[in-house]
Amino acid sequence: MSPVEPDRTDPEGAIAAAAKRCSNWGRWGEDDVLGTLNFLDDAKRREGAALVRRGAAFSLAQRFDAEGPQKGWRRRTNPVHTMLSSGLDAEFGPPEFPHGLGGADDVIHMPLQASTQWDGLGHIFDHGIAYNGRRASTVVTSEGDRLTGIETVAGRIAGRGVLLDVGRAVGQDGELPDGFAITVDHIQATISAQGESSRAGRGDLLLVRTGQLTRARRDVAEGRGWGDYAGGPAPGLSFTTADWLHDTEIAGIATDTWGFEVRPNEFDVAFQPLHQVCIPHIGLFLGEMWDLDALADDCASDGVYEFFLAAAPLPVTGAVGAPVNPIAVK
Amino acid sequence: MSPVEPDRTDPEGAIAAAAKRCSNWGRWGEDDVLGTLNFLDDAKRREGAALVRRGAAFSLAQRFDAEGPQKGWRRRTNPVHTMLSSGLDAEFGPPEFPHGLGGADDVIHMPLQASTQWDGLGHIFDHGIAYNGRRASTVVTSEGDRLTGIETVAGRIAGRGVLLDVGRAVGQDGELPDGFAITVDHIQATISAQGESSRAGRGDLLLVRTGQLTRARRDVAEGRGWGDYAGGPAPGLSFTTADWLHDTEIAGIATDTWGFEVRPNEFDVAFQPLHQVCIPHIGLFLGEMWDLDALADDCASDGVYEFFLAAAPLPVTGAVGAPVNPIAVK
Amino acid sequence: MSPVEPDRTDPEGAIAAAAKRCSNWGRWGEDDVLGTLNFLDDAKRREGAALVRRGAAFSLAQRFDAEGPQKGWRRRTNPVHTMLSSGLDAEFGPPEFPHGLGGADDVIHMPLQASTQWDGLGHIFDHGIAYNGRRASTVVTSEGDRLTGIETVAGRIAGRGVLLDVGRAVGQDGELPDGFAITVDHIQATISAQGESSRAGRGDLLLVRTGQLTRARRDVAEGRGWGDYAGGPAPGLSFTTADWLHDTEIAGIATDTWGFEVRPNEFDVAFQPLHQVCIPHIGLFLGEMWDLDALADDCASDGVYEFFLAAAPLPVTGAVGAPVNPIAVK
Amino acid sequence: MSPVEPDRTDPEGAIAAAAKRCSNWGRWGEDDVLGTLNFLDDAKRREGAALVRRGAAFSLAQRFDAEGPQKGWRRRTNPVHTMLSSGLDAEFGPPEFPHGLGGADDVIHMPLQASTQWDGLGHIFDHGIAYNGRRASTVVTSEGDRLTGIETVAGRIAGRGVLLDVGRAVGQDGELPDGFAITVDHIQATISAQGESSRAGRGDLLLVRTGQLTRARRDVAEGRGWGDYAGGPAPGLSFTTADWLHDTEIAGIATDTWGFEVRPNEFDVAFQPLHQVCIPHIGLFLGEMWDLDALADDCASDGVYEFFLAAAPLPVTGAVGAPVNPIAVK
Repeated sequence: MSPVEPDRTDPEGAIAAAAKRCSNWGRWGEDDVLGTLNFLDDAKRREGAALVRRGAAFSLAQRFDAEGPQKGWRRRTNPVHTMLSSGLDAEFGPPEFPHGLGGADDVIHMPLQASTQWDGLGHIFDHGIAYNGRRASTVVTSEGDRLTGIETVAGRIAGRGVLLDVGRAVGQDGELPDGFAITVDHIQATISAQGESSRAGRGDLLLVRTGQLTRARRDVAEGRGWGDYAGGPAPGLSFTTADWLHDTEIAGIATDTWGFEVRPNEFDVAFQPLHQVCIPHIGLFLGEMWDLDALADDCASDGVYEFFLAAAPLPVTGAVGAPVNPIAVK
Repeated sequence: MSPVEPDRTDPEGAIAAAAKRCSNWGRWGEDDVLGTLNFLDDAKRREGAALVRRGAAFSLAQRFDAEGPQKGWRRRTNPVHTMLSSGLDAEFGPPEFPHGLGGADDVIHMPLQASTQWDGLGHIFDHGIAYNGRRASTVVTSEGDRLTGIETVAGRIAGRGVLLDVGRAVGQDGELPDGFAITVDHIQATISAQGESSRAGRGDLLLVRTGQLTRARRDVAEGRGWGDYAGGPAPGLSFTTADWLHDTEIAGIATDTWGFEVRPNEFDVAFQPLHQVCIPHIGLFLGEMWDLDALADDCASDGVYEFFLAAAPLPVTGAVGAPVNPIAVK
Repeated sequence: MSPVEPDRTDPEGAIAAAAKRCSNWGRWGEDDVLGTLNFLDDAKRREGAALVRRGAAFSLAQRFDAEGPQKGWRRRTNPVHTMLSSGLDAEFGPPEFPHGLGGADDVIHMPLQASTQWDGLGHIFDHGIAYNGRRASTVVTSEGDRLTGIETVAGRIAGRGVLLDVGRAVGQDGELPDGFAITVDHIQATISAQGESSRAGRGDLLLVRTGQLTRARRDVAEGRGWGDYAGGPAPGLSFTTADWLHDTEIAGIATDTWGFEVRPNEFDVAFQPLHQVCIPHIGLFLGEMWDLDALADDCASDGVYEFFLAAAPLPVTGAVGAPVNPIAVK
Repeated sequence: MSPVEPDRTDPEGAIAAAAKRCSNWGRWGEDDVLGTLNFLDDAKRREGAALVRRGAAFSLAQRFDAEGPQKGWRRRTNPVHTMLSSGLDAEFGPPEFPHGLGGADDVIHMPLQASTQWDGLGHIFDHGIAYNGRRASTVVTSEGDRLTGIETVAGRIAGRGVLLDVGRAVGQDGELPDGFAITVDHIQATISAQGESSRAGRGDLLLVRTGQLTRARRDVAEGRGWGDYAGGPAPGLSFTTADWLHDTEIAGIATDTWGFEVRPNEFDVAFQPLHQVCIPHIGLFLGEMWDLDALADDCASDGVYEFFLAAAPLPVTGAVGAPVNPIAVK
């Protein structure tokens, strides 16, 4: 069932072939801006809501602050949060308002890919071509993404979520090592191990836990720092999952790693080849740097791996990705 | 039923009296950081999820961009979104990655109160005192809110939402004029007009539509600009609703205006006196600049004013407020 | 002496003709990144330094803050300056350092064209062509100006400055009205009126005062606000001065207006046509939003219009313009 | 001549004693905001200008970009420079202006202490007290420095500069090792070695080269990165130089290190004790992270260590420090 290994020496050919097999160009019309979110319909949202049994809620976002994992790669820094006024001003400073009213305000500067986020369809191009066969230059200029900006999906991403805890099912002590390529076999094994609630299909939002974030946080806690969590080696989806990702007709997929797919990649020379297939060709929404640990513990404990998931990105006009605080409710 | 008008000439006294009547200090222990979100429990989330009948979803966020209403008051500017790389670079610039992979990235600078947001409990102080009786200076320093930062509620705000379309029920053509003070009578009249699905109680998230945003957007569309939408006169909650807001035990309340309460305020000299009672004393979560129009149209059309609401703020560590893309699902 | 008025209906032709007459492409070799700053040599700096007689110094920068004239045009906002820590933290907050040491730090977010600045040679293109005939796309990508970034002139802009107070010499009460086009005749009249110290030639840095900033500041002081100072009608250089600017071989020219040239421009339909000749073809350095008032008062008082001028832009790597605090010493 | 070593175990006492000996509080009146810049007068500027013999100019600023030394300490990041529009937009994007005009604009986000800068008088406090005996809380609030903001010295810092190349005079291969404390003896030895042009006195701007930046840049070039250049061990001024810095009546002093004084500091437990004396008590202007290498090479070559120095900080209103591109002209 799992496709044969692609030729390590021919990424260009493998990418082109997968792109051709998995293309959704034109599937929803030439004006489409939603890609695989077309699969996430009202029925799927009803199905998701019906999964709420206990009412327990889990935030799947990392914290947005200066202590995060970014190191400046591609000018991606950690968020810088500063106060415009503080409680010290309110208590000790000159009064700003009458009758004892005091206020604090704040401001943030951050790359939109700094922490927990959704990639938009304008985030990745293949040979200068964006999703649905559009020229990259007509989609994303210096003014932002004029067609598929993240605001176009502001109200859609809520539905049935499924956690695939591959780290627990396949890994050692709940974690996959860096460089571990998650194949379709691993996915199937995880679904088998987790049971019926883990089936994944059309319109679902898949969450894949590798355990890398667990490890990175342990490294931080023990003084070793984040290492290359935000841009280096990582467990992740194998290039060979492209067809499965396409054929299953999921609406989106998110991982607890910076880059969704395995690093180093599975070709001698390549950089994120699975992105190159998934975003411009499948039109698949990818979530990265999600914190799946608390949810995973809960799922392991009650054996239920499906839930309602609301993961609406901040609708920054023209953004090619956006931060999000996803909420899973079981 | 509606309280007597407060003495216009004595805001300080009126605020102090309301604060005393409505205080929740100590109610959930001296270490509490959740305030009225304590009312939003798992049972309420189950109740909310059970309201999903059609699966229709609505984003309640305005767009985050440079065309927004901010004019620099309190150094609140509109979000500035810039590209770190664009589709033009990918199509015409020097190749950044092998095999035709191109990527676009972006960055944002914005006040956290710039657009659709939740106020955190560290946003407002009364005579130098924050929620639960803490000294403002021990809560919010230049490093941010060290106790009640918005990240502390990252995983809580999902539950039953109720829309009170006061603009439609009480206003002219669906809109309340600037300076219109919404009293408890207006709230009750709205609930009566809307019917059973509008009852509001413990743990609910209340959305109050005044219609001001509808008007402001019309002004923008017709070339008159935003005017003072982000800091000037507005319809909003009357100071006299403080007790109702406290006694009803709602978990949060959000409006389509910049400041939740009516402006000009109802005292001869005052600035946001209801904030001064609600945030530090009630511990109430206030949402501002929410876009309730599409949801309101739908509610008017099907007569159902309750829904599942997921409104998880971006968990910026130490933030005294945070942007949010709330999703209502009916 | 003044050239004939260009045909108001043919900006494209007029620009092309002026560009051809005034081109400096290749004049300093195909690798040149300095443009007219090639004229500013060590001898000119000696000449400038020799002009210091009293030692009086004048800052020619406006203040960089949130109260500035920007209104968001082209996403140009006013600078947002926020504190990372303040004196309130130092006096009342938790101690950050031992033995009573306290510190305050700050951060800024600003467009590089927000206030007093130099345009770099990568700021303006003519039909996709940058200075010296280079393709714009090879010079300025999303990563910045890779060839003529402002850092390339970090150590050059110090020399002989000359003030041409056209507002005083030609205007009413020291000010030219918006839309006033300064021609070569006006320049010559100003030089004549001011006397010998105002001669302008090879390698000089010319400062042209129109008086618009004086007027704008009066408007601010009297409650009318900045109006369109940062992007609207203004007095400024006539398109017809292009040849004079080229032939005089000045090293740079700066004005007290946002855009150096007259607005509305002198064609029926045009936008900043003189920029289109000066930057990509002449390679001329343009300074904008300089505050010349205090210096002008002093020059009017002692009759000396030449001085040493040090105006080194902040060397932001790859910037197409940069803020500067120019210092004139007489 | 050099003071005795301070007691390593009593920083608090040593700081207090030095502060008392060196205090300039009240020296220039209780409203003074200029501190030692009062020493820099018109006569000194004339003296400085008269030093220009060849007209050679040197920028003393490092480059402001994402490749700088900052690592996030105290939320100090490297500057993030992004384009609002680029040459790719101008050449290939939709036309923004008529007749082929294209433009590029950019924006920056940076801590004001990120690179080459002057500390303002509001940057450091001693036990909650700022320069001239003012309470820190009355000087620097969340709105910035209301009294001694860097804009107050916008037009002053131009005069006679003197380079003391201690690295060359006292160090090995032109560099002092990290932790090397420069004493008055080292200063005197450097002046003796360099000769008459190096005498330092009232109103001068002293530049002290340690060679640490030379070393850090070598580390970067050879792949070892910046290390702790922006906040770690460094050569620098000894605490024992406080009296000399005060008595010599210099107007300002700048080094090629991040923190001006030696690190580790000369007490068992201390953090920048010399700052604690120099800024709030002497009112001395400190420059940090200046690039003195090219100038130092020139001085070593012609034996002349004095020059005209223009070092006007960017006048950010209320800033407690500001970036600067200093220009030395010999």
